[in-house]
Amino acid sequence: MERLLDIDEVVAHVKEYLAQGDIDHATQTIADLRPADQAEVFSELSEGQQTQVLRKLNAEDSADILEELHDEEAADVVESLHDADLVRIIDEMEPDEAVDLLHELPPERAKSILSALSDPNEIRPLLIHPDESAGGVMTTEFLALRRRMSVAEALNAIRLWAPEPEIEESLSHLFVVDAEGRLVGVISLYKLITSPPDARIGEIMDRDVIFVRAAIDQEESARIMARYDLVALPVVDEQGILLGIITHDDLVDVLEEETTEDIQRIGGSEPLDKPYLDSSTLYIAKRRVGWLLLLFVTEMFTGTVLRHFSRELESVVALTYFIPLLIGTGGNAGSQTTATIIRSLAVGEIDWHDALRVLWHEMRTGIMLGAVMGIVGFARALMWGTGYDIALAVAVALTMVVLWANTVGSVLPLLAEKLHIDPAIVSGPFMSTLVDATGLFIYLQIAKAILGV
Amino acid sequence: MERLLDIDEVVAHVKEYLAQGDIDHATQTIADLRPADQAEVFSELSEGQQTQVLRKLNAEDSADILEELHDEEAADVVESLHDADLVRIIDEMEPDEAVDLLHELPPERAKSILSALSDPNEIRPLLIHPDESAGGVMTTEFLALRRRMSVAEALNAIRLWAPEPEIEESLSHLFVVDAEGRLVGVISLYKLITSPPDARIGEIMDRDVIFVRAAIDQEESARIMARYDLVALPVVDEQGILLGIITHDDLVDVLEEETTEDIQRIGGSEPLDKPYLDSSTLYIAKRRVGWLLLLFVTEMFTGTVLRHFSRELESVVALTYFIPLLIGTGGNAGSQTTATIIRSLAVGEIDWHDALRVLWHEMRTGIMLGAVMGIVGFARALMWGTGYDIALAVAVALTMVVLWANTVGSVLPLLAEKLHIDPAIVSGPFMSTLVDATGLFIYLQIAKAILGV
Repeated sequence: MERLLDIDEVVAHVKEYLAQGDIDHATQTIADLRPADQAEVFSELSEGQQTQVLRKLNAEDSADILEELHDEEAADVVESLHDADLVRIIDEMEPDEAVDLLHELPPERAKSILSALSDPNEIRPLLIHPDESAGGVMTTEFLALRRRMSVAEALNAIRLWAPEPEIEESLSHLFVVDAEGRLVGVISLYKLITSPPDARIGEIMDRDVIFVRAAIDQEESARIMARYDLVALPVVDEQGILLGIITHDDLVDVLEEETTEDIQRIGGSEPLDKPYLDSSTLYIAKRRVGWLLLLFVTEMFTGTVLRHFSRELESVVALTYFIPLLIGTGGNAGSQTTATIIRSLAVGEIDWHDALRVLWHEMRTGIMLGAVMGIVGFARALMWGTGYDIALAVAVALTMVVLWANTVGSVLPLLAEKLHIDPAIVSGPFMSTLVDATGLFIYLQIAKAILGV
Repeated sequence: MERLLDIDEVVAHVKEYLAQGDIDHATQTIADLRPADQAEVFSELSEGQQTQVLRKLNAEDSADILEELHDEEAADVVESLHDADLVRIIDEMEPDEAVDLLHELPPERAKSILSALSDPNEIRPLLIHPDESAGGVMTTEFLALRRRMSVAEALNAIRLWAPEPEIEESLSHLFVVDAEGRLVGVISLYKLITSPPDARIGEIMDRDVIFVRAAIDQEESARIMARYDLVALPVVDEQGILLGIITHDDLVDVLEEETTEDIQRIGGSEPLDKPYLDSSTLYIAKRRVGWLLLLFVTEMFTGTVLRHFSRELESVVALTYFIPLLIGTGGNAGSQTTATIIRSLAVGEIDWHDALRVLWHEMRTGIMLGAVMGIVGFARALMWGTGYDIALAVAVALTMVVLWANTVGSVLPLLAEKLHIDPAIVSGPFMSTLVDATGLFIYLQIAKAILGV
């Protein structure tokens, strides 16, 4: 396969088969796809069609599909399945994904299904970890080696172990534990293959293994994996006992999820916990209305400022014409700054300790940008036939407002980070709103001084 | 190791050693770290200190550090190294990273160093691929298996092959080629270990292998790896000949890089190609000034609109007080919408074909949000002592402007995607600016009609 499949085309075929009552063909078409594609095609079907297909698909394919769907969507899909069918499917799911799905089911049903699973003990320990913690994304399906094993014994153990295909597919490392199950080392599959069969694991393993505690945030685990190029990250409890492993696919999922949350916050709304088109408009509106109202209230200070200068505005109406231009430019400069700072904080390029350097960086940038905007604004105002004094007021105000926006735009995200608030919320809309009222004040104060009104 | 190292502390130690002239200790402290940490500590040193350390470090550690640094930074660092030292270091680098560094050197120096490398042919083919293409991020250091090999022969070949530690560390799959070098299959290391020694690779390999052409964009390759949970993605030429492999660490780097670009664009500036604090303020200002000026020009239409309604504004100055509030709220609603749509486009949740559904989704959301804002705005205007008719005009205008912002905010990113422009540029600042002039027009038109001025 070279590029992404044309999903729409496959969906059209499947729907055609279903319309003709040819469920076997429809199911086979889906079964032949890769899990990610199966899930996408599946989620384009109507609820009734989904149930038809799910009843025909084998448990393994069904499990793959449910793993790829968002948790809420998966929960909706299985609502109409018989418990026995659902148990067969969940038995085939990766433990961390199975737990996510169980969390979404009505508690009574989740309980009865859990007890009917063939290996509930693989799943039970995961239930206690919060969904967004390292413990919540790890898989408990792993093979731990012992220090005293020889390489030949370890390879034998691997041969006897028959994990889910997803796990064996990406297996590159095995972790080593002591008699109490405490994590003591790691060895790559490559190293196992290339070491003499009688070498002891404890002697050839790497003791300097990177791990995380189950309670830490999933984003921090993902950052560690990304930083150290890890394909697998072991998760341990307070005693150092190996509990599970965060795998490569989880890393990518977490990074994508966190980026989506950041970008939605930067846009000025609370993150959606479902794909966009699966979210109801009422839900989307609810996620947005809080910020919109808060910003509205903040924005009302602009009215206060304008009232304060009502005498000046009435005597020189031309001042009004530049209001949106001035506060708009301030907001834009502020957005540019915050977006850059938020991202630098997120990837760990800068932190609170760099606050002064960042501030100095942005103030110098702000002076340069402010000067350019001031000159352009001055020329433009004159071209509009505005008086020389008003043009001067606009130019000076533009320079000051851009400098001010860069200053505020760099300080606020750093301050948020320091206060353990997600810096992404101090974003574009927040910044523009804040700069609007203050920028307006700067503008009208300067105009008052220069025009002498 | 449990959590991220305290880099600042390590840097302080290293600097102390260097100040005491104890270069051995300083170098050893760095050598004991992991590559990502080595690079971070290293980049905190002054240029002179970096050269001192680099001369003492062994070639392998130096190579690790240069791989982790940004390309421009790495090029700066090696400027003062002798060619012979640099050749030893580049020999130890992964081919794709080595090429990125060579691209940053003066052409003359790059040429002479290339010819002095121990295996220039590992690197030469990479030079022809653009930096941001699949060919530009792949590594050419791979072991290809043949179909006729037995499992035992394949395992033997793996034992004889001695790749860079980074490559063997994350090895999970091997790719299979025919006599002409064309990619024909893939086999996991796990499968190799668990198959009978005399089985033929051609019979047990997976023929349905996902691959990309060398010319496709690195972001598309990363999307494919993320979608199908791949740890390694083979890259082929037009004839299907296996050229190289994109590895797990490249995937994460590309995802992070693309996210950073997106977020900087969403903030309304051209992406920086260096870490923030390593970018000069002049460079940062240059990346921002274009958009700032373009938005400024667009924003000037607000002046045109205000002039157009100058008679109304002069007769009812109170209308002015609501201008920033109205256009600010419109901008905020537009930012919320675009951020969500841009991200949904980026992760492939929606595409141009969903345009009508998205539009309908946002219009309904816009009506709800607009109604809420209208009611709150009406109440607030009355509380401010504004006349009933002006309050009504503000309320109706708020509803219309929010609806309008949601509509524009959903259509524009989709349109950009359709026109193969990065939707991230149709972002918050762009949206607020666009909504400012049009929102103003809507507001004053409504006010004119209601107030009859």
